[in-house]
Order: sequence, then structure tokens, then C-alpha cells
Amino acid sequence: MNEFELIARYFDRPARRAVLGVGDDAALLAPTPGMQLAVSADMLVEGRHFFADVSPEALGHKALAVNLSDLAAMGAVPAWCTLSLALPRVDEAWLSGFAAGFFALADEAGIELVGGDTTRGPLTIAIQVAGEVPAGLALLRSGARPGDEVWVSGAVGAAAVAVAARNGELTLDAATLAACSRRLDLPLPRLALGARLRGLASAALDISDGLLADLGHIAARSGCGARIDWDAVPVDPALSGLPEPVRRQAALAGGDDYELCFTAPPQAHAQLEALAQTLAVPLSCIGRMVAQPGVGAFVQEQPIVLPRAGFDHFAA
Amino acid sequence: MNEFELIARYFDRPARRAVLGVGDDAALLAPTPGMQLAVSADMLVEGRHFFADVSPEALGHKALAVNLSDLAAMGAVPAWCTLSLALPRVDEAWLSGFAAGFFALADEAGIELVGGDTTRGPLTIAIQVAGEVPAGLALLRSGARPGDEVWVSGAVGAAAVAVAARNGELTLDAATLAACSRRLDLPLPRLALGARLRGLASAALDISDGLLADLGHIAARSGCGARIDWDAVPVDPALSGLPEPVRRQAALAGGDDYELCFTAPPQAHAQLEALAQTLAVPLSCIGRMVAQPGVGAFVQEQPIVLPRAGFDHFAA
Repeated sequence: MNEFELIARYFDRPARRAVLGVGDDAALLAPTPGMQLAVSADMLVEGRHFFADVSPEALGHKALAVNLSDLAAMGAVPAWCTLSLALPRVDEAWLSGFAAGFFALADEAGIELVGGDTTRGPLTIAIQVAGEVPAGLALLRSGARPGDEVWVSGAVGAAAVAVAARNGELTLDAATLAACSRRLDLPLPRLALGARLRGLASAALDISDGLLADLGHIAARSGCGARIDWDAVPVDPALSGLPEPVRRQAALAGGDDYELCFTAPPQAHAQLEALAQTLAVPLSCIGRMVAQPGVGAFVQEQPIVLPRAGFDHFAA
Repeated sequence: MNEFELIARYFDRPARRAVLGVGDDAALLAPTPGMQLAVSADMLVEGRHFFADVSPEALGHKALAVNLSDLAAMGAVPAWCTLSLALPRVDEAWLSGFAAGFFALADEAGIELVGGDTTRGPLTIAIQVAGEVPAGLALLRSGARPGDEVWVSGAVGAAAVAVAARNGELTLDAATLAACSRRLDLPLPRLALGARLRGLASAALDISDGLLADLGHIAARSGCGARIDWDAVPVDPALSGLPEPVRRQAALAGGDDYELCFTAPPQAHAQLEALAQTLAVPLSCIGRMVAQPGVGAFVQEQPIVLPRAGFDHFAA
């Protein structure tokens, strides 16, 4: 199978919203008048962002999910994406699985694959997504103010525990490993929540580097700080049997859960609790933005000290 | 240097046209009303698309150039791009050179880097570009009609000769190697030409897989065929001392020159010759579209048979 057959068999689907889809020098898109575009790109490398033994379906899902999560964090509605894929060999079973996982999520999220590239090389997946958001209503990292409450969606910590287990740093029982692995391999971008936070949240992002590190990005861009109440952090129930230091490290510094962390003025509290009911997405108020720079988590006024604050791809 | 410092030092420049540039979950762009977006993505892998000894400046230029060439082929005006980079290590001299080459061309082309990703991994560059084109005026591959003339910009063949020399398949004198290498390493996307071909050309693409193979894409999408007159093909002057079979293979089947190949009705002939003068870009009429499917090059009615028709990343 050559490059063109590969694209035709696995990635070329009839254009829906696109004016022109896969197959020309470029795709053609007609942006919706009055909307701004939110554009983001992520690259996943084997051995770094995923393990060689991950199922191709899960990988196709996850590669797109982490990109969609960025759109969710902006309050944008997914519109189109491109996929560039370096493959060590043409493995039809792998391609078929990858495409199945990718398109299942793409269809659910309403995003259209309009172009990309395939080449031989070390397994690498580069995706770029674009979403639409009404002009001026995107959720930025820079809008938090002292006094705003800090919220997090869903539950955190499970994906980091799965990573630690796969790296041999933790031993888990089978049920815990399965639950945590599912969070790591099949993150669900909080698209419906992101869109509904427009006009409610003052700042937002998705948690990919770790709750404290990511909240630090909001604090830095907003020119303030944040205090988190550890007892309010929604630690994933899958971690209930694990030692407290592991739970804290995973929930506060573990990435990969792709939940949203956002801030909102206290007046929005009741509306956010109602939204959680409407969407059936847990929303936890975990702390407050403060004037003094710096982000910390506390247990009864005592600061929690973590061995590692967040994830850095270029750390030694 | 960590990931954030790396981005800040080499890739984060103040947003110009973008509503919001590098540093949030996504960039925010405001599309120009009435314009469609042309979107394309390319991935370059070390050892496959470039040699390990290529200068980082040249690589930064080329990685963007091959993407811009796709916008040129659509008649689109470059607007913004994302860059995802997997790096085996943080090498500041390399990054500084890569960024210099990338931004020099980006500034010249008027395209803004608005986001991307950096990670550790085998050297891989994934770029996605977006350009604007007035609704309905993009140059597609599907618009050629029997009787249309076939044109090519500039000169072809030099880049393929440089590849063959670096692969040890050819021995060149120093001047020829330098001239051919320059075409391979520093392709110039034909952006001004592409924009001016709107309304003149019936179909267009950029030559990346080889002249005959790429013209075959136009023919297939347009439901016709093409006949090329070898004597009219603008073979790069750097190839003048090489044997005829090498010249033919390089000019007809070699990729990487990133010239435009396009078709136009014969009535546009004089206008295209005038445009060549205006832009100081050679335009050669090299043949004609025909009703019968298939693409061939001829010398005095005798078909030329080439050992290899084009480049395929997944060929054995």
C-alpha cells in the first residue's frame, strides 16, 4: 500500500462542513461569520506520551482528545483538524484501529479531519485543531482576579497513578490499575462544560501538566496567586486505597487527566453548581485566587510540599 | 532550560494579527470576512525529509517553505501557522538557527506563528499553515479541461539531483552540487505567483512528488490526461552538464523543487507570459491536457519511459 492508498483507505472521508476536504494541496474551510477561531496543536511521541503497548484505538482517541481538551478550555466548539502521522511501517491492523478510535471521538465531538500528512518515521502523531468561539467570549488564562473561586471538573490523579504504575514506581491491584489506566488512555475532553463556562468563568485551562502547575499558569497570567484546600480537591475514587503522599502527588502534580481548572467570581457559585447538575459533570470548588503571587495547596492552613511540582518534557 | 523557557526564548513573539498568540490553551484568530481558509499540514522527519547534517537555519526555512508552497498552490495568502517540534535534546545553537531560518521566511511570507508544541523525541517537525483566499477563487486540482495548456514555474530537477548526490547515486562537481543543494535546502514558495493565478489557472498544485506524478494528480482529479513535451520542460541550468537520462529522471520524476504546475486555457497564454515578466518568475508552457487519461512526456512523439515515476514515502 502506498501513501495515497493509505490515506484513501483510512483517513479520507467525504467532506461535510469543509468546502474541500482531504486530497488537494490544502483543505478549504468557510469560517462562520462573527466567530473567532481557537487553534491549538499537540504532538505525541512513542515512549514519551504513550507506551508502545497501548491499543491503537485508545491512541487514536487520546491523540485527538488532548487537542480537543485545549478547545474545551477556551470554550470553543470543535470545527476541523489536521493529522500528521509518522509510522515505522504500514501496519493495517494498527491503522484501522487508530482510525477507528480517532473518528469515533471526532464524530462525537463534531470535528472534521480535513488534511494532514503521512510519512515513514518513528511513531509520532501531530494534530492541530481549530474550534469556533463567539468573538470576545473565549476563556483565557489571564482573567482571574483575587477573590475568584477556583474550580476543577471531574476527578484528578488517576492518570498519574497509571503512569507511575506502568513506570514500575507503584504496584496496584488489578481493579485500581484498570480504572486508572482508563483515565490515562481514554481521557474525555470537557467540551460541553467549556462551552457553558463562557460568560461564567473568569479564566480556564485544561490540566495537562498537573493541577498546581497549571493553576500556576492562570495565576501568573492573571497577576495573582492561588490557595487550594486539599480536602476539597476531588481525588479520583480509584485512588482511595493508596497512601496519602501518593494521592497528593498524583492529584496535585499529576497531569494527563484533562479535566478543566477554572476560576469564577463567588457570585457565580450557585450557577456553577446548577451547571454541574445539568451536565452531570462534578464541579468542585477547591480554593480561591489571592493577591499574593504563588500557588499552594493547604491542609488546615499547613502548606503541602510535593517532591515534584509538574511535568516538564525537557527535565533531566 | 525547560519547555516553557524554550518556547519563550525561541518561539514566543508578540501577537500581531492574532487576537491571542502563543501561551494560552489555544491561539485566537479573527478570520477576514468573505475569505475562505486554506489549511495544510506537513511533517518532516530526520533521515527521511532532510539529512542530519543540514544547517538548522536551512531546516527552519524548508520546514515552513514546503507548507507555504501548498498555500501558494491554492492561491491563498499566508495568515498563521502552528509548529510542533520533537527534539532529541535542548541544543540552543540548533534552536537559535532553526528559529532564525523559520522566522526569516515567516516574516517574508507574512505568516504568524500562533502556537504549537515542543517535546523530547526523534527530530520531527510538524507544521500546519492556514491562508486566506477569496471565497470560490481557490486554485483546485480538479479544474483542468482537455485543451488546457500545462505550465510550470521556474526550473525543475535540481533538488532531485542534490538528493541523488547525497545518497551516493551521483557524483557532481562542486559548483553543480552547491547549486543543486541550494534548491533542495532553500526552496522558495511561489506565493506571489499563486495569488496572481486566481482567475487565470484552471488547476494548480506544487511539485513535491515529481512533475509527472503531480500532474497525474491534476489529471486524475480533473478526469482527463496530459501530454508533456520534454523539450519544453525548464530543466534547471545546473543540470546542463549531466547525462540526458539523469536530467529526465530528475526533471520529470524528482520532487522537492516546490515549483507550481498549473493548467490554463489557451486564451490565457499571453496574460501568463505577461505575468512572468511582471513577477520575474519564468513560466514555461510544457504541454497540454488531453481527453484520454494518463500522463506522459514525449520527445518528438516518442514517449519517455522513466525507471521511477515519483516518490512514495511507503515504497519498499
